[in-house]
Amino acid sequence: MKNPIDKLILNRVSWLADCGPDDDIAISTRIRLARNLKDTPFPLAASEEVLQKSVLAVQLASEKSKSLKNPFFMDMQDLSDLERAILFERRLISLDFSVRPRCSALIVSQHEDLSVMINEEDHIRMQAIHSGLQLLDVWDRINKFEASISDQIPFAYDQNLGFLTSCPTNVGTGMRASVMLHLPGLALANQVKPLIQGINKLGLAVRGIFGEGTDNLGNLCQISNQSTLGESEVEIIKRLEMVIAQIINHEKNARSKLLETSKNLLLDNIGRAYGLLKFSYIISSKEALNSLSMLRLGVDMGVIKTVDIHTVNELFILAQPAHLQKYAGNALSQAERDEIRANLIREKLKKNN
Amino acid sequence: MKNPIDKLILNRVSWLADCGPDDDIAISTRIRLARNLKDTPFPLAASEEVLQKSVLAVQLASEKSKSLKNPFFMDMQDLSDLERAILFERRLISLDFSVRPRCSALIVSQHEDLSVMINEEDHIRMQAIHSGLQLLDVWDRINKFEASISDQIPFAYDQNLGFLTSCPTNVGTGMRASVMLHLPGLALANQVKPLIQGINKLGLAVRGIFGEGTDNLGNLCQISNQSTLGESEVEIIKRLEMVIAQIINHEKNARSKLLETSKNLLLDNIGRAYGLLKFSYIISSKEALNSLSMLRLGVDMGVIKTVDIHTVNELFILAQPAHLQKYAGNALSQAERDEIRANLIREKLKKNN
Repeated sequence: MKNPIDKLILNRVSWLADCGPDDDIAISTRIRLARNLKDTPFPLAASEEVLQKSVLAVQLASEKSKSLKNPFFMDMQDLSDLERAILFERRLISLDFSVRPRCSALIVSQHEDLSVMINEEDHIRMQAIHSGLQLLDVWDRINKFEASISDQIPFAYDQNLGFLTSCPTNVGTGMRASVMLHLPGLALANQVKPLIQGINKLGLAVRGIFGEGTDNLGNLCQISNQSTLGESEVEIIKRLEMVIAQIINHEKNARSKLLETSKNLLLDNIGRAYGLLKFSYIISSKEALNSLSMLRLGVDMGVIKTVDIHTVNELFILAQPAHLQKYAGNALSQAERDEIRANLIREKLKKNN
Repeated sequence: MKNPIDKLILNRVSWLADCGPDDDIAISTRIRLARNLKDTPFPLAASEEVLQKSVLAVQLASEKSKSLKNPFFMDMQDLSDLERAILFERRLISLDFSVRPRCSALIVSQHEDLSVMINEEDHIRMQAIHSGLQLLDVWDRINKFEASISDQIPFAYDQNLGFLTSCPTNVGTGMRASVMLHLPGLALANQVKPLIQGINKLGLAVRGIFGEGTDNLGNLCQISNQSTLGESEVEIIKRLEMVIAQIINHEKNARSKLLETSKNLLLDNIGRAYGLLKFSYIISSKEALNSLSMLRLGVDMGVIKTVDIHTVNELFILAQPAHLQKYAGNALSQAERDEIRANLIREKLKKNN
């Protein structure tokens, strides 16, 4: 029988392949909810027995949920380091979850649009993710799933505080809604730094592609709500959506202005990136991400017509270390990865042509 | 009637288009002879009347020569600065000749393989140029032409010294034989500097693409004899040929070794250069020359199969400032040249594909 990771990789990833609103700038929308089982110690304080019981309870509840059909179930301890790293690179689990497998497990829908980490710092971290900017739809999806399992496993809840979580920053709604934005226009116009400062002042968080503390490589950044208390989920989402819509407008304006005032500089940046991806034999992760960003801009703006956006989206995922090692079939040194990465990108762009 | 420069540009340039021995490394072989008219003041000391008489005498003698059929004749003062710069970029005249038009003229064969500068620092500077390494053939060509005009216009000659010239470094044979080599393999292996030192010790001169004092941009260098006294022309040529053959061997070995020990690094250098030339919209002269060098290496080694060597050779000439302005039809700032250069290169590589 095939390993679940191998099966997962062969399936279509809906948030990469499908089209969502404004997906030229908003790559994906993700909402996660943190929940804990009632009257049960939080995972970091729980015994192995309790952890195992929690896994089983969540697994059973998920199996009965109508929101999740034929999902993959993976025991983290059954997976290799590489396989867990792949799940991390696919944005299905957190870094901590990938590095420290305790009695923890993952449930993932066939196309990766819904997933549940069991025994991360909370018993349950469920997330829904779609292409483009569609916060209310994603909220609807995860909210329905949450309701479908809460019938079977009561959550730790306080009348005044709301849902209780391991870390106080999540208490209340337990919700983190985030949108991954691709902002190469603002980056070329040197407007990303002031933008980030402005967003922070609005009480929202800006992070790089792999969450807290990561750079905004590839001109990608995730914008999410900071606070989880004092507002309803829909209020939080609507406020976030308004800000994101404004940023998308800024990015669109920056692109138009570049096209108007420095067209050749823009075409040069895009062309050089495309040439590099198409013909290089050694490429670092950073150079690949930044070049893919420029290529995506070229595709979005209709400058590059021989590549489709889904190939570029996919390469952002596939060019990462664990995926490269999976592709190569063995562990790779950094130098080897830089070669395999270049090979993979060349092949994908050739096929796409 | 069309300007002679316009006609010249439309003709095939034989040393760029034809194939010569070892032309993957030896781009061209050139021999020039310096001659002065007997009992006539050297150009720098001559009156305008004398200069005009010299032009006429050389022109008439050339017209009767069987070695030069239907050549172009150009009075330097009739040409614009741009047109003279084009002749310089095509390696038909010296920088001094292009910048300071006195009573000077140029005779050029239809395919630019034979040319005569009249009233450079000597009355006559004749050159023959062919593709590849073929010193004896080129010598034969220029020697026959020299003989054909010497019947009609006696040269300043001294029994002991040989031919007399304006600058003492040319006295004797008046010959400078040079081979333009493309040495990207040795450059990638950091072996160009020691090579140049070694060549200098052998009494040969190494210069960049545009003669004395110019860099070896594009990994191109010209190797030529220094001394013109005490040996016959054929002795000088045979000694030069021996050294050049050795350098060609070194370059071949460097290429094989790179292919053996650092194949991906080599392919990466070539691929990046190709990608840059194919897709950039702004490219400086230096970046273009160095990228064309790597592309030529790729074509020579069979790595790049979609471009032919003559297109690359031609681009080395066409990507220069004066040619770009001719191509654009008007004077260009440096920034404009960088854009037109990128356009031209993209177009040529697309057509070639």
